[in-house]
Amino acid sequence: MSVTAAQGFTAAGVTAGLKDSGNPDIALVVNEGPSAAAAAVFTSNRCQANPVLWSKEAIKGGSARAVILNSGGANCYTGAEGFATTHRTAELVAELIGSGAVDVQVCSTGLIGRLLDEDKLMAGVRSAVDALDAGGGDAAATAIMTTDHVSKQSVREGDGWRVGGMAKGAGMLAPALATMLVVITTDVDLPAETLDEALRAATSRTFDRLDSDGCQSTNDTVLLMASGASGVTPDADAFTARLTEVCGDLAMQLLADAEGADHEIAITTVNAATEADALSVGREVARSNLFKTAIFGKDPNWGRILASVGTSDARFDPQNLDVAVNGVWVCRDSGVGESIDLVDLEPRHVTVTIDLKSGDASATVWTNDLTHAYVHENSAYST
Amino acid sequence: MSVTAAQGFTAAGVTAGLKDSGNPDIALVVNEGPSAAAAAVFTSNRCQANPVLWSKEAIKGGSARAVILNSGGANCYTGAEGFATTHRTAELVAELIGSGAVDVQVCSTGLIGRLLDEDKLMAGVRSAVDALDAGGGDAAATAIMTTDHVSKQSVREGDGWRVGGMAKGAGMLAPALATMLVVITTDVDLPAETLDEALRAATSRTFDRLDSDGCQSTNDTVLLMASGASGVTPDADAFTARLTEVCGDLAMQLLADAEGADHEIAITTVNAATEADALSVGREVARSNLFKTAIFGKDPNWGRILASVGTSDARFDPQNLDVAVNGVWVCRDSGVGESIDLVDLEPRHVTVTIDLKSGDASATVWTNDLTHAYVHENSAYST
Repeated sequence: MSVTAAQGFTAAGVTAGLKDSGNPDIALVVNEGPSAAAAAVFTSNRCQANPVLWSKEAIKGGSARAVILNSGGANCYTGAEGFATTHRTAELVAELIGSGAVDVQVCSTGLIGRLLDEDKLMAGVRSAVDALDAGGGDAAATAIMTTDHVSKQSVREGDGWRVGGMAKGAGMLAPALATMLVVITTDVDLPAETLDEALRAATSRTFDRLDSDGCQSTNDTVLLMASGASGVTPDADAFTARLTEVCGDLAMQLLADAEGADHEIAITTVNAATEADALSVGREVARSNLFKTAIFGKDPNWGRILASVGTSDARFDPQNLDVAVNGVWVCRDSGVGESIDLVDLEPRHVTVTIDLKSGDASATVWTNDLTHAYVHENSAYST
Repeated sequence: MSVTAAQGFTAAGVTAGLKDSGNPDIALVVNEGPSAAAAAVFTSNRCQANPVLWSKEAIKGGSARAVILNSGGANCYTGAEGFATTHRTAELVAELIGSGAVDVQVCSTGLIGRLLDEDKLMAGVRSAVDALDAGGGDAAATAIMTTDHVSKQSVREGDGWRVGGMAKGAGMLAPALATMLVVITTDVDLPAETLDEALRAATSRTFDRLDSDGCQSTNDTVLLMASGASGVTPDADAFTARLTEVCGDLAMQLLADAEGADHEIAITTVNAATEADALSVGREVARSNLFKTAIFGKDPNWGRILASVGTSDARFDPQNLDVAVNGVWVCRDSGVGESIDLVDLEPRHVTVTIDLKSGDASATVWTNDLTHAYVHENSAYST
C-alpha cells in the first residue's frame, strides 16, 4: 500500500534496464488531486546530486504533481549533462501526466560519477506512466530498492484520512549506493506551509537521529505530497503526530536493514541540560568506531562510551556520569558500576543509556555496530 | 637514544608485572638539570584519566624533574582511589630523586576502568630509579609499548644541542589500549614559556593532524623537558623547527604502526581560503568510514571524497572541485576526470589531493584505511 494507501494517488514500479541485475528500477507516484500541496527536505551535504539540485528549486512553489525515482545510478557529479538528464526526465513526466515540469520531483540512487542511460530512462518513464495504478504502492516501493533486503512501507490512519510512505536505503551506511529516499503521501487537505512544518518536525525526530556511519549522502530526499482527496483538514498537531509515526516506523526499518550490521543500537541520553546537549552526546557516541566495534564484539565497553561523551560540548561533570548497557548500570559516577558480565549483547537490539545528571532533557540517537561485513560491503561493491 | 640523546637526562625501563605478557611496563625519565623547564599538552577530551588530571595541574609551574610512565593500565575512570595512586606514584619518585611531587609528571596507558596494582607499581618505581642510566633511552621507549609493534624514537641536532623523543601508540586507533604518549627531551637552555610556545606550534602541525579513527584518547600526553645542560640558548624559531621535525617523525612512526591498517593516507587540501578551511576538509575526509573502506578495497572512489568535502564548512564551489588520488586527477570540476584505472593503490602510502580553488592555503591530515583487522582488533581485545 504505502504511497497509494491515501486517496488520490496512483503509483507504478517498472524495469527500465538501468540496473545490471534486471530488477525494477523506476518508480513513479502521481498525485491525482484535487490538491497538489507538497513539501520536502533534502540532504544538508553541500555536494548535491543533480536530482537534488532540481527538486530543491522545483519544490519552492509548494506543489508537486508527481515524483519520478530511479535506482541504478545516482546522477551525481555528472555535471551539466547530468542536470540536463534530470530536467528532461521531469519534462517527460510532466508532458505525459499533463502538468508543468516544475511540479515533478526527481530522485536518483545508485553509483555516482556516471551518466544515466537516457534512452533506457525515458523509455522507462513512459512504461511507468502506462503502469500507473491506484494499487501500485508495492511495485513502487520495490523499484526504489538498491542494496535493501526488503522494501520499507508504513501507513497510519487519522479520522477519515491516511498518511503512508515508502523508503529505500540501508541506514545511510553506503550513501554512494544506498541513499535514503522517502516518499510520503496523504489525502488530507492542508496547505504547503503546514505540510512543510509538519515534515520538518517529523524528520528532525526520526531520520535526522539515525546515524549509521556519520556519512551524509549527496542524494537524500524526503518528499511529502498531499492530495486533499479525503476532504478532511485535520488539526496540524494530529497530522504531525501521525506523520512522525510513519517517519519513525520507516527509520527503524532502515536501521534494521543497515548493510552489514549485527546490532541496532539506541543511544539515549537522559538528564541533559537541553535536548541539543542530549543529541550532541548521542551523536558523538554513535560516530565512535571504537564503540561500534566493541558492540560488534559483544563487549559492553563503557570506557569507550565515556571517551566519546568527553568529546561533546554538552554540559556535564566528567567525574559524575552513569552509563547503562541493556539496562545494566555498568558505570556509576564515572567509575566501575555493576558487572559487565550481567550484560547480554547477543540480541540484535541494544540500548545504551547515558545519564548526564545536568537537567531534565533527553533524546535518542540510533546507530549500528561496525562489523566485518560493513568493511567488506563498502570496500568491495564498486570494484 | 631518544630521550637520553640530549645531555642531562637519565632513563630506565623495567618490568613491574603490571602487564600479563611479562614485558617491560614502567619507564622513567629524569632531568638532571641544571634547568628543569618543561611544557606539556594533553588530550582535549573532557573525560580525562587520573594521570592527566594530575599532570595538567603539576605542569602549571613550568617545571618537571621527571616523568614516570606505566603501561598495563590507563588508571582512567578509577575515581578517587585511582587519583590517589597517581599522586602516591609522583610522591615516591620525588622522594627517591629528591624533588617535589609537583615536579613529577605521570602518564599511564592500558585498559581503562581498572585500578592499578599499587604494590607492583611502587616496587617498579623503585626498580626504575635504581636502573636510571644515561643510556637508558631505548629501555624507556620499549617499556611504554602496548600494542605497538616497534618502539618509536627520533633525534635531531642543533648547533651544539639536541632534541630527542620517544612515543607510544598506534595512531590513536585504540585509545582504550593504545593512548598516544610522547616524551621529548632537550639540552637547550630555554624558559618554560618558550618551550610551551614551541611545543604547541610543533604539535599543532604534527600529532594534531594525525587522525586515525577520529577517536580521542583520555590519556594522550606530549611532554617536553629541557635540561639546559648544553649551555646553549638557540633562537626560538630554530628550536621550534627541530622540535617540529622530531614530532613529525614520531607522528609518521605512529601512523605507520596503526593497528590493523593496510594504508597510510596523506590528505592534502590545496588552494583553500584559509589553513583552517584546508584542515576542516582534510579531517572530514579522514573521518569518513566510506572513504577509508574504499581505500582498503583499493578503490579510488572520489565520489566518497567529494561527499565528505561537502560536509565541511570550508569555502568552495561544490561544482568546481578537483581530486587526485596518488597524483591521478580522477575528478575534474566535480565530474569525471582521468580514468580511475590509472590509480595504483597497492603501495601502503596513499596521497589524496583536494583542490578547493578558493585561495592559496593548504594543509595535510594523515589517516589510515578501515580494514577487517581494525574491526577485529578493536572488537576482540578486551573480551
